[in-house]
Amino acid sequence: MPETDLLKELIEALRCLPGVGPKTAQRMALHLLERNRDGGKQLSEIMRLALEKIGRCSSCRNLTEHKKCSICANNNRDKSLLCIVETPSDVIAIEQATQFTGRYFVLMGRLSPLDGIGPGELGLDELQKKFASNKLKEVILATNPTVEGEATAFYIQKLAAREGIAVSRIAHGIPIGGELEYTNASTLAHAFGSRLSMN
Amino acid sequence: MPETDLLKELIEALRCLPGVGPKTAQRMALHLLERNRDGGKQLSEIMRLALEKIGRCSSCRNLTEHKKCSICANNNRDKSLLCIVETPSDVIAIEQATQFTGRYFVLMGRLSPLDGIGPGELGLDELQKKFASNKLKEVILATNPTVEGEATAFYIQKLAAREGIAVSRIAHGIPIGGELEYTNASTLAHAFGSRLSMN
Repeated sequence: MPETDLLKELIEALRCLPGVGPKTAQRMALHLLERNRDGGKQLSEIMRLALEKIGRCSSCRNLTEHKKCSICANNNRDKSLLCIVETPSDVIAIEQATQFTGRYFVLMGRLSPLDGIGPGELGLDELQKKFASNKLKEVILATNPTVEGEATAFYIQKLAAREGIAVSRIAHGIPIGGELEYTNASTLAHAFGSRLSMN
Repeated sequence: MPETDLLKELIEALRCLPGVGPKTAQRMALHLLERNRDGGKQLSEIMRLALEKIGRCSSCRNLTEHKKCSICANNNRDKSLLCIVETPSDVIAIEQATQFTGRYFVLMGRLSPLDGIGPGELGLDELQKKFASNKLKEVILATNPTVEGEATAFYIQKLAAREGIAVSRIAHGIPIGGELEYTNASTLAHAFGSRLSMN
């Protein structure tokens, strides 16, 4: 056994990170021990703190260590616009790429009855209360264009329509910079079906 | 700012791991927070412990949380054979691939005067004491076949020869399963020069 017990445990523990196999875990452990002990100590401390403190925003369900996340707490954001996404990383992506000034609602998943994920797990009761509060002008559905994502979007659209709120879905089609030739058939068919008038 | 401060800090801290850029760090942080909080807590705890406890073996300089590493503490290992390697991962690789029953000496680097790494930094004074102790029959040099690794091997060979200890260097040549056609020129030239008699 060339590895000490603690080193072995560290290598094993590092494998809980996504995409980290035994070789990468070994490289990470040895890198920290040989070359970056300070960084490792800081990482361990921040990881402990983050896992202890970060919970969900009481308003949008996004990850935050405060009661409300920084977006919900920001009074400059438009309260009448609500963008509904599946995960916190979708919020980060939209914030980085767009000029969206409204607020978010993070489902933390998508409807998937076979996995036991129903409306309750996604906080759709809270969402319904938001819809009923009569403050929303538009709901933007930004769930993923997968079967479950579409079903989730359809379900939420029904809820919002019942309250008379305008609902939109982000556009799907050929990616910018993509080529028709290499676009998959269902995307191309969708892009054709959803064509916009240029007049 | 869609990320909370702690989440941002965690993403930044994860980048101290080798091969982890901003996107991977974000994916790791969200994975831990959304899907594996227990694994993350355990990782943080083991990382703290490992960085605090793991030091160097007093005999071979390998990483260990004890005074002596498990190999040096193992009395069944041959004390007259000493394999000299550059890093702890070389020890792991040799232990996994070979039947070597001797002990190791881990340089934790290689001679590189331009980077300020001389004999003192590699513990060559300790190594010299081992050579002088008259207990060694053979020293196996397993430093990497790079310019610095070769220079280090040459330097250690001189030290050992002065004490009359047999010195060997692990073989370099065409890798098993490799093809001559795709082997680089210097490896091929070396393999030719170091050909072994088959009689």
